[in-house]
Amino acid sequence: MKTFEYRPEVRWSDQDLLGHVNNARMLTLIEEGRIKWMHEMGTVRLTGGGLLVARQEIDYLLPVMYGPELTLTLSVARIGSSSFTVNTRGDQSGRQVFDSNVVLVHIDRETQRPAPLTDVARRFLEDYLPD
Amino acid sequence: MKTFEYRPEVRWSDQDLLGHVNNARMLTLIEEGRIKWMHEMGTVRLTGGGLLVARQEIDYLLPVMYGPELTLTLSVARIGSSSFTVNTRGDQSGRQVFDSNVVLVHIDRETQRPAPLTDVARRFLEDYLPD
Amino acid sequence: MKTFEYRPEVRWSDQDLLGHVNNARMLTLIEEGRIKWMHEMGTVRLTGGGLLVARQEIDYLLPVMYGPELTLTLSVARIGSSSFTVNTRGDQSGRQVFDSNVVLVHIDRETQRPAPLTDVARRFLEDYLPD
Amino acid sequence: MKTFEYRPEVRWSDQDLLGHVNNARMLTLIEEGRIKWMHEMGTVRLTGGGLLVARQEIDYLLPVMYGPELTLTLSVARIGSSSFTVNTRGDQSGRQVFDSNVVLVHIDRETQRPAPLTDVARRFLEDYLPD
Repeated sequence: MKTFEYRPEVRWSDQDLLGHVNNARMLTLIEEGRIKWMHEMGTVRLTGGGLLVARQEIDYLLPVMYGPELTLTLSVARIGSSSFTVNTRGDQSGRQVFDSNVVLVHIDRETQRPAPLTDVARRFLEDYLPD
Repeated sequence: MKTFEYRPEVRWSDQDLLGHVNNARMLTLIEEGRIKWMHEMGTVRLTGGGLLVARQEIDYLLPVMYGPELTLTLSVARIGSSSFTVNTRGDQSGRQVFDSNVVLVHIDRETQRPAPLTDVARRFLEDYLPD
Repeated sequence: MKTFEYRPEVRWSDQDLLGHVNNARMLTLIEEGRIKWMHEMGTVRLTGGGLLVARQEIDYLLPVMYGPELTLTLSVARIGSSSFTVNTRGDQSGRQVFDSNVVLVHIDRETQRPAPLTDVARRFLEDYLPD
Repeated sequence: MKTFEYRPEVRWSDQDLLGHVNNARMLTLIEEGRIKWMHEMGTVRLTGGGLLVARQEIDYLLPVMYGPELTLTLSVARIGSSSFTVNTRGDQSGRQVFDSNVVLVHIDRETQRPAPLTDVARRFLEDYLPD
């Protein structure tokens, strides 16, 4: 099983009044990791169409801090006919800090409706599925 | 069943490159609505302790736009022994645009561990439960 | 002399670790006020072209807090041949909290170069000049 | 003359509707560079007190894009008795994209009033002054 790792540069201003990386900002870091991973796979290979975020869920296990290295590990949790789920796990200072799942839907650019994933996209994603 | 309504001021800069309110920014608006509702109920009544976000989930049904009025409607989806779930529904231009659930855990400030909701908090929250 | 007033909804998350509205976020609120003012004047009247921010300056006089009403007062500090300067003054709790000047350049959409302000735009802006 | 270089990780979400890094977000990147530089010098050496942003100015020369490496170069433009000015120059794709000056005031933590820069702080800053 392949994974994609991303170590975002957390900014001082990502912290909120409580001194933790703000919850909403965490989704921004997860989004950035996904974009970097997508870029690596080549969105062209994935789709003739576009990808839309249909659902996000995140379990916050521990506060994320400014300073210590934060590692996001991306894999694929599920592949459907026209959608797939990206899992992002966050680790900091040797402990898991969050677990997130994002459902992306493949959209046909012309009809603006969900469209089947291409075979080449499916094969790419399958490498990132847990056994 | 009571609900709490909040009409956030969406900012031009909440839009991303695609011309939609960014997904992560939506969580900021949901957070702001929750804080305003909490303020109305009086956090003192709710807790001798604090509240921590343990989990967030959101289904994006339609893109949210800058301009048309956006209405968030908050209610309580579940009350547990030391946690509860706030549902936030988003509507714009007569259509539902998202549905979100956020799990908040009541934390004892001294031990920093989950603690039972007080009776007065429980009664406050029960008014916002669907029948 | 006319002015345009805007009372932005400050968000809890606009605060930084220090409990003040973050400096960069202040520019976002100033930008939002400018957009609302521009919308009122009708950008069509102003320009056949577009407007580009060429320069921003801001003096921070007092920290801006979450909670008390914040009022932005916009006027025009200078009108040039193809640019003008918008002054935004911030007040909170009866005291001035910042003073900002933003230089906007009128750009011809075809050539992407600075172009003279139209007469109708100039007349609109002149109303907001101090005597 | 010493300078401090910082290559921020620009995020996809730093772009606004126009496809440029948003103006306000640029101040966030400049802030992050300043914090990293301050951390290197050791704030302890600089001050027994704190530092407050009193003024910011920025000239936008070219739009900043997501993708190409962005380099911020920090130096000291002026040293006063209780304040100093940090210059940040931005470069991308071989061209200068902005020029910024930020005035920081040294604050005595007890009196909350401006206080003279210490000798050690002054010496540190002098290395970053242009000849």
